[in-house]
Formats: sequence, C-alpha cells, structure tokens
Amino acid sequence: MIIIGEKINATRKKIAAAVEARDSDYILQVGREQVEAGADYLDVNGGDPAKEVENMSWLVELLQKEFQIPLCIDSANPEAIKSGLELAKTGKSMVNSISAEKERLESMLPVLSEYTCNVVALCMSDEGPPKGVDDRIATAENLIEKLCGAGKKIDEIYVDFCVFPVSADQDAPHAMCLAIQKLREMHPEIHFCAGMSNVSYGLPERRLINQAFTAQLIGFGLDAIICDPNAPGMLGTIYASEALAGRDEFCMNYLTAHREGKLKS
Amino acid sequence: MIIIGEKINATRKKIAAAVEARDSDYILQVGREQVEAGADYLDVNGGDPAKEVENMSWLVELLQKEFQIPLCIDSANPEAIKSGLELAKTGKSMVNSISAEKERLESMLPVLSEYTCNVVALCMSDEGPPKGVDDRIATAENLIEKLCGAGKKIDEIYVDFCVFPVSADQDAPHAMCLAIQKLREMHPEIHFCAGMSNVSYGLPERRLINQAFTAQLIGFGLDAIICDPNAPGMLGTIYASEALAGRDEFCMNYLTAHREGKLKS
Repeated sequence: MIIIGEKINATRKKIAAAVEARDSDYILQVGREQVEAGADYLDVNGGDPAKEVENMSWLVELLQKEFQIPLCIDSANPEAIKSGLELAKTGKSMVNSISAEKERLESMLPVLSEYTCNVVALCMSDEGPPKGVDDRIATAENLIEKLCGAGKKIDEIYVDFCVFPVSADQDAPHAMCLAIQKLREMHPEIHFCAGMSNVSYGLPERRLINQAFTAQLIGFGLDAIICDPNAPGMLGTIYASEALAGRDEFCMNYLTAHREGKLKS
Repeated sequence: MIIIGEKINATRKKIAAAVEARDSDYILQVGREQVEAGADYLDVNGGDPAKEVENMSWLVELLQKEFQIPLCIDSANPEAIKSGLELAKTGKSMVNSISAEKERLESMLPVLSEYTCNVVALCMSDEGPPKGVDDRIATAENLIEKLCGAGKKIDEIYVDFCVFPVSADQDAPHAMCLAIQKLREMHPEIHFCAGMSNVSYGLPERRLINQAFTAQLIGFGLDAIICDPNAPGMLGTIYASEALAGRDEFCMNYLTAHREGKLKS
C-alpha cells in the first residue's frame, strides 16, 4: 500500500497562509508529522492559480532538502506539474492528476512524456463524473490508452475512479469497488488510488465511513491512498485491511506497525 | 443486515455459571443489553453437553417471555435444536448450525424438515475446513442441495464460510469474501452469515481487524453477522458499511442509528 500524505495542499487555508508567508518551519512540521506517521509520498499542491508555479517550486525545493521520500505533484496546471517534476529528485515522483477532460488531457500528456513518473489517472471526463461500473471502466480504458501512447508503462498508472459522497449518491462507492476489481482483472499490473476525505461528506461520525470505505476499497484491490496518515485509526485500518486482503504474509507489516505504535486509534 | 447477538452462550464461563444457577436476572440483563444495542436475533447456546437440552429449554422459555425478537438456536446437538425450536415462538427462529460433516448433517436434516426456520449452513466437512474459493463454493453447494432437498427454501439458508484467524491463514479472509460474491451470483436469494470473534485471534488491536473485516465482508455481500453489538464501533461499522455497499437508500438507516446513539465508538 502506498500512503500519500494529503496535508501540504495550499487550497487549505492554513497551508495557503504558510506558503504565502514562506513559513518553511510550519510546512516542514506538517511534512514531518506525515512522514513519521508512515507516509510513502507527500502530496504537494501550490494553491492560488496566480502563484501556483512559483509556490510549487518553493515547496518542492523545501521538502526535497528535508525528507527522503518522493513527492506527489498535485495540480491541474501542466506548468505547475512541470516545475515540480523538474525539481523533485528523490525516488519516482507521482503526478496528481491527469483526467479524461479533453483540454486537461491534451495539455498534460506532453509533460508526462517528458519525465519518468507515476501518474494518477482521474476518471473524470467532459461528460462529468462517471456513472456505474461500465462507464468508469470505459473512462479508465481511454486514459490508459492515451497514457500508454504517451510512453507511460501500465504499472506507472494509478487509476482514481473519483470518490463521491455516499450521502449524495448511494451507488457510487460500491460501483468504485467493483470497477477496481474488474479493471484489475483486465490489467493485473495497474494500480488504483483514492482520496479518502470526500466519501463521508455531509454525514455524522465521518471516521466510521472513511474507515469502512478504506477497508472495502482495499478488499477490492486499492493499492494507493491519499489521506491524512495521522487521522485516528486510518493507518491501523489500512494495515488491518491489507492483512485481511491476503497482502501481508504472516501479518508481519501489521505486527511491525503495532510495535512502532502506528496502529493506535 | 441481520445482527445476531452472540453473548448468551453457555460455553462462556460467566453465562455457564448463570445458566447452572438458573440466574434469570443475569441472563435477561445480557439479553437486554444486546436488544437495546440493536440485535435482531439473540443467539442461545446451552453449553455443557450433559445438560444442553434442558439448558436450552430453560433459556428459550426465559428469553421468549421477555423479548420480542426471534432466537438463534445454537447447538450441534439435534435434540437441543429441537427443544429450542419447539419453544421459540417469536418470529422465524434460526438454527446455528448445520454443517457438511456427514453425521451432523444426517442427524440435523430431519429436525430442519420438521420446523419452519432459517438455518446457518456452516461450510465445514469431514475433510476439515475449506481451502480456497472453489472448495468453499463446492461445500456450500452440497449443503444447499441437501437443505433444499429437506424442504428449506433458498432464502432460508445463511451460508457461513467459517471465519479463521488471519494470523494463521492469510488467504482465508479474502477467499471468504470472494466466495460470498461468487455464490451470490449463482444464488441471488441466498444469505451469508459470519461470526466476527475469530478473525483477529492472536493479533494485537483486535478491534481494527474485526471492524475492517466486517466492512470488507459487507462490501462483498454479507447480510447477517454474529457479533457482540455492544463492542465499541461494531454497530457503527455495520451501518457505515451497508451505506457504502449501496444498501441504505439516502443513508437513512445510518442517520437513524446516529440519532439513536448507536454509532458511538
């Protein structure tokens, strides 16, 4: 399981203020908390479109100097993605994200061709979010074809079927699970990624929903997750779900995480 | 989702002592806690084989008088099952369980023919517990054939693929999930039941494992669960998982459970 720490995102107020003020101490503290909790990647979003490219450069340089894990360069702007990929040197960066929306797709593909990187393929098209399992699969297949055509390998692609609030659409979460299972059968080497902060929107006791959905998605084949690794119970749910999905021999990762104090809720 | 409260089981020391002493206050208190927490059935096990039949009669009479929910008559002894079914009048009783072990199967089928009841079909044969998905399906198909031959309807059957500790067999939990999904495709009207106290045996932070497995099983189609409905987080996980599996229109059950204070962890 690849855990992508979501918190260094300047579309959030506190991060935006810290980026604006070039408050490196605060940004590094948020990074350190996620790294120590168990993040494998740090997501980096530069926020304010007018300053996104320079914000991204500043953030990537800052985080690169301090942490030994790769970054997930998060933007819909190809220039911001390019500036991030250019500076990110640790490990294999991830791009978050390309989508099947024509303009975004066409502007992003040349950048993705230029750099060796993983890429989140967000299943959103100009017709809007996908409906049902087959529509999700069709959108993903379109993206896979385009990305492979641009030189990406299949195991560099992290399909994201878009998490919608279950309060708004009660069929969407399970359709996402089934789409993951089906597309994995078609492309055994592909990866699946999901952000966890959206599914419980509008409901009470959001943690129950987030954890149950994490467990279900992992059961159906999710192997990368964009989340707050410090959210109570999140890491424990991930390790437990991996063991139950038959992806943790002798439960060694679960037991190690327990010894390291990562399972506490 | 049918929630079967597991606690009135005289193979447990405190319940055994209370049954031996005919301490009806204690038994009713354990029953009430489960009913108030949201149990749809109360499991009843008479314990000590030498006194199981009379214990079962005493328990069933006691619980029938007090609670308005049906009982799950739990024994491997057909005489104990018969004594329970004879006295249990509220709703449609459940029998827990028949198995594919030849002796148990042959001794239990005549009792099941005699009474209108639901039945847990435990996928355990004389060759021991099932291995892999296909073996689970084959054992279940054998039981379904025998039960239907004895007059049971397909929707009276609750297949239990046997929950094993993930610490001992890392493939078993996921095989159980896949078997549920596959058998549901073959028999859309069948039900699936699982006990939740076993999967986390031998591991720390058992609650994480129990909750993640509950979420995964419900995602794959589980619709009855034998558990302690008072275990912290258990009811919340069940309601959240049902909503995420597309089985709770407008999340009404989840929201109602929240208003009734059942979601608290």
